[in-house]
Amino acid sequence: MKKWSVTSPGAQHLKLETAPIPTPGDYEVLVRVDAVSLNYRDLGVVDGEDGAAMPFPCTPGSDFAGSVVAVGQRVTRFAEGANVIGTFWAGWLDGDWPPTARVLGGSLPGVLAQYVVLHEDWLVQAPRTLDASTASTLPCAGLTAWFALVEKGGVHAGQTVLVQGTGGVALFAVQLARAHGARVIVTSGSEEKRRKVTELGASYVIDRQAHSQWDVLAREYTAGRGVDHVLELAGGENLATSLRALHQGGRISLIGVLGEHTMTFPSVPSFLTRPVIQGIGVGHRRALEDLVRAVDAIELKPVVDERYAFEQLPQAFEHLKRGAFGKIVVQAN
Amino acid sequence: MKKWSVTSPGAQHLKLETAPIPTPGDYEVLVRVDAVSLNYRDLGVVDGEDGAAMPFPCTPGSDFAGSVVAVGQRVTRFAEGANVIGTFWAGWLDGDWPPTARVLGGSLPGVLAQYVVLHEDWLVQAPRTLDASTASTLPCAGLTAWFALVEKGGVHAGQTVLVQGTGGVALFAVQLARAHGARVIVTSGSEEKRRKVTELGASYVIDRQAHSQWDVLAREYTAGRGVDHVLELAGGENLATSLRALHQGGRISLIGVLGEHTMTFPSVPSFLTRPVIQGIGVGHRRALEDLVRAVDAIELKPVVDERYAFEQLPQAFEHLKRGAFGKIVVQAN
Amino acid sequence: MKKWSVTSPGAQHLKLETAPIPTPGDYEVLVRVDAVSLNYRDLGVVDGEDGAAMPFPCTPGSDFAGSVVAVGQRVTRFAEGANVIGTFWAGWLDGDWPPTARVLGGSLPGVLAQYVVLHEDWLVQAPRTLDASTASTLPCAGLTAWFALVEKGGVHAGQTVLVQGTGGVALFAVQLARAHGARVIVTSGSEEKRRKVTELGASYVIDRQAHSQWDVLAREYTAGRGVDHVLELAGGENLATSLRALHQGGRISLIGVLGEHTMTFPSVPSFLTRPVIQGIGVGHRRALEDLVRAVDAIELKPVVDERYAFEQLPQAFEHLKRGAFGKIVVQAN
Amino acid sequence: MKKWSVTSPGAQHLKLETAPIPTPGDYEVLVRVDAVSLNYRDLGVVDGEDGAAMPFPCTPGSDFAGSVVAVGQRVTRFAEGANVIGTFWAGWLDGDWPPTARVLGGSLPGVLAQYVVLHEDWLVQAPRTLDASTASTLPCAGLTAWFALVEKGGVHAGQTVLVQGTGGVALFAVQLARAHGARVIVTSGSEEKRRKVTELGASYVIDRQAHSQWDVLAREYTAGRGVDHVLELAGGENLATSLRALHQGGRISLIGVLGEHTMTFPSVPSFLTRPVIQGIGVGHRRALEDLVRAVDAIELKPVVDERYAFEQLPQAFEHLKRGAFGKIVVQAN
Repeated sequence: MKKWSVTSPGAQHLKLETAPIPTPGDYEVLVRVDAVSLNYRDLGVVDGEDGAAMPFPCTPGSDFAGSVVAVGQRVTRFAEGANVIGTFWAGWLDGDWPPTARVLGGSLPGVLAQYVVLHEDWLVQAPRTLDASTASTLPCAGLTAWFALVEKGGVHAGQTVLVQGTGGVALFAVQLARAHGARVIVTSGSEEKRRKVTELGASYVIDRQAHSQWDVLAREYTAGRGVDHVLELAGGENLATSLRALHQGGRISLIGVLGEHTMTFPSVPSFLTRPVIQGIGVGHRRALEDLVRAVDAIELKPVVDERYAFEQLPQAFEHLKRGAFGKIVVQAN
Repeated sequence: MKKWSVTSPGAQHLKLETAPIPTPGDYEVLVRVDAVSLNYRDLGVVDGEDGAAMPFPCTPGSDFAGSVVAVGQRVTRFAEGANVIGTFWAGWLDGDWPPTARVLGGSLPGVLAQYVVLHEDWLVQAPRTLDASTASTLPCAGLTAWFALVEKGGVHAGQTVLVQGTGGVALFAVQLARAHGARVIVTSGSEEKRRKVTELGASYVIDRQAHSQWDVLAREYTAGRGVDHVLELAGGENLATSLRALHQGGRISLIGVLGEHTMTFPSVPSFLTRPVIQGIGVGHRRALEDLVRAVDAIELKPVVDERYAFEQLPQAFEHLKRGAFGKIVVQAN
Repeated sequence: MKKWSVTSPGAQHLKLETAPIPTPGDYEVLVRVDAVSLNYRDLGVVDGEDGAAMPFPCTPGSDFAGSVVAVGQRVTRFAEGANVIGTFWAGWLDGDWPPTARVLGGSLPGVLAQYVVLHEDWLVQAPRTLDASTASTLPCAGLTAWFALVEKGGVHAGQTVLVQGTGGVALFAVQLARAHGARVIVTSGSEEKRRKVTELGASYVIDRQAHSQWDVLAREYTAGRGVDHVLELAGGENLATSLRALHQGGRISLIGVLGEHTMTFPSVPSFLTRPVIQGIGVGHRRALEDLVRAVDAIELKPVVDERYAFEQLPQAFEHLKRGAFGKIVVQAN
Repeated sequence: MKKWSVTSPGAQHLKLETAPIPTPGDYEVLVRVDAVSLNYRDLGVVDGEDGAAMPFPCTPGSDFAGSVVAVGQRVTRFAEGANVIGTFWAGWLDGDWPPTARVLGGSLPGVLAQYVVLHEDWLVQAPRTLDASTASTLPCAGLTAWFALVEKGGVHAGQTVLVQGTGGVALFAVQLARAHGARVIVTSGSEEKRRKVTELGASYVIDRQAHSQWDVLAREYTAGRGVDHVLELAGGENLATSLRALHQGGRISLIGVLGEHTMTFPSVPSFLTRPVIQGIGVGHRRALEDLVRAVDAIELKPVVDERYAFEQLPQAFEHLKRGAFGKIVVQAN
């Protein structure tokens, strides 16, 4: 089989290697990887920036869809032929995040390979209604949006959700909020992306270049009430604007790989608005199973910007770096 | 103005009277009543069965939509001309139910009159997208379904809701569950009602006459998983069947005016299934405001079976007694 | 080593056998069992009444404390010498109960042996402040009370908890409620037990033989307000009395091995009181770790009625059958 | 009667005036004020810094205990002779904060008078176990600590709470956390205050002058686990330290009148720790009633540093400015 390996820091050191197909242990499953969805953090792993990553050489990649080819003796969760997706966090099954949890393509070997062996606990049944390319986008981007809005946020009809930008998490948030009867405001600096996200279901878009005080527009749109949920994807001073846009007791989800390294906000509004500001770091397996069930029920179609052949991983990373509208997927088989 | 009064127990003692239009006190509002939606409990009040009711003669009716005609000196929540609906519970604003809360057309005078004076706290803004007839159905039937599924139940996409029968609360539950991406199973003994509720959005209907063990069908429909929410509207032995249909940790909402006087269920499944069984007694004003916002956002159209002129109240009650598909509304002005 | 085995249904078929000390697999731990705490369900297993039990011959027993003697190659949670207690549910780590979870001395071999091999996931660190006998009472009785009152119930200072009887769960409930600043009412038919439970911290005791309408006394004690939590340990018609004793929106925890096979309650109070009635089936590992931390912080001392030597298991079961005040513990080493 | 009035900004403009005893309207109550507890925000009102305050001249003061002397015609909550305390927020009864809520001695006239007339909704029954001086400290300082730790935080036995400083809210937090079986870490720059707070129940004190990296000590004290709750009373860069001290998924309560005008924290830990950061702005009436019940149950004695006669208000404000250990109370009758 083929697999990608990065021998030392930097995308120029990515190598497509040949390796034997691995054999599953007692509780393990051999999966044929069909599609791998890329995340910004994969770039950090390739560049050696992620402190928790494997030592070089290593295989990057965390999110995939595939099908079970062989199972270990004591495996009970899956049979041969099952279509599966991975859990971003290996070992976070439900409830509180346990310190023993690890990340595929982080402190564990990644999935940019044609076959991988994984503990059966690190997989869930894939949705019936998606092909491998679209299903591969759920484990990190899809679950992050779901965890913020549904698992922790309890979004419901009649609420307003504000999403910053049009990255992978943001687009899932638009689709999920709409599927729960909520309205969605999206801020974006690009006219084309504002148009596309409107087609996807955004109720109202704000040009954040033209309106640095976008909270004023968000308040107007909600008749002065403020928004119920913010997905804070920008960080820095932006958090103060998010707070001003928020309804009393509203919720701000702080989501990983924020643009800025620190966040700042004024003290007084922070208690007068009584916000709940919660850090979201993807989510657990039980919530991913809930999301899969939801995807089938509402026939949600994740936005994939472009699919690349397995050999084209470097081009796929290039695309990711220059920005996309939707996920970038590499097809492995 | 005209108003209905019942002079002694029994619908035959309903009288249409003439009375002066009342004047609002400091914190009160004069409302022109446009539509009154009937509930089964109104029949109990007319028949003198409701222990908490006013002494005879009294005016029945709790759920209405109308518009503000005059306001008392210290009123701040509404101005003249505002379209409003009443809160079923006068004095339950948010959080826990306070023992001081009372019911219009129960321990307080009812609303089957062309004008009523009410404390400003007992009203909320009507939805923009509904006329008075449909808006009048929200305070009791609409809010009960919302409170069970959304406020307390946190229903979300991918879940399955099971609703018993096709009464007013049940039909709202179908619409609200669908608006949150959930699937709905409805049990009903009538083929025509099963057809109609399917048109309204039910995902699966069960003939409960033919299938007393309807839990088996509900489990099959959910691939063995069981349903996430049950609106228990039948009571008696039926609760045991609801428990068998339930997913681990699922939720059963016990809703008022159940057909049977006692409920019975086996002990062992009651803890092995780890259900949450919660009594729902309509809901508070803040949740009604949330529902109004949702109705506008998702353009929910409540099902009204028939509208009657104000003089036709006796016929409207007759219709209610023989059964309806949707709410019965009396137009007051 | 010695271990107990039951060869066919009935306590007369309990046999003390000799067996080789087992060897741990990759993820497994060898534990020297120091104390086993008995539960009523162990009697059911011995009598062959538990549908989920192992085929005969089998070893009963689920709750133990011991210390780690050897660890498998891939074990990370424990080192040799660690003092541990077992989790009643093998495989329920946090959040929702998974259908793959099993019970020691149920569908899995039991722990009435001097050494057992267990997956590392099925153990937690024992409290620092307890010896093995008292620590062995936490996995089922202690955790059930904690799960009902703290994990699910969020008990707090100023609330009133009502506990039925003086069984193992009830006594833990008294101690835990008191440790959170709550008052506790205990109903019991025995004057001696009422005296003992008062010494343990009960704020008020009711002779339930003399007062079948004990809800009236409970309401008086709470100045008419009603109690905030009931641990329903009796079942049957008693549930209706519990409902009448309950404060608006209060919580009733239905707890396993109820005396009666069905529960009955009247419909109308079930929604007018807006209770939350929740089935409790022990609890998960994360909550057991929370309980262990609490036991050390508040220096809770579980009530052990009597300790038996390993060979005296039949006498210990006899004691359990005729009733005890506190747990019956068998010392294994 | 006498009452304090401030005629223009600045404590030098405080005047003790004579005024007629007011008369209650329909829903109002005349209360003889026995004790008024001072808060820092009262200084802001006197100095004209609070944007929401009444125009000058005005009477400051928000927190009091007293007894009902006369009731309006339609009052149902209290009878003559009832001992009462005020709610800090007039009009926040339960659930979400409503925008119509106002503050006594803020946008409403204050209570530094020998008699006040208030809406019956703005009062709750005083605790049985406290005199007026100590009871007067509950409405703001007591309720803020309760709302953060109990109502929103669900503190329980075995958890660790970290409190910054030894102000009024901090001391209540120490007492309340202890009453729920939690341990408490207090940071303080004063050796004397560290000694006093240890006597009050603090489990561990940190000299924050000597240890700017107090998170390291807090982690050590919790065996590396981190603390479960932080009451953030300092603000600014301190929030980043609080985040580092926090256990996964722990809770930081942002509490009013923070020392610094902005808060700053690094992005990455903000989602890796998955904290819940929640703004607390005192709390609602239902929670104050819960607190009163708790105070009686656990016999909590609020810390009063010094009592002043009514005429000594200027000296009392001076004491408040130079710092106290416990609340400063003015006795009005």
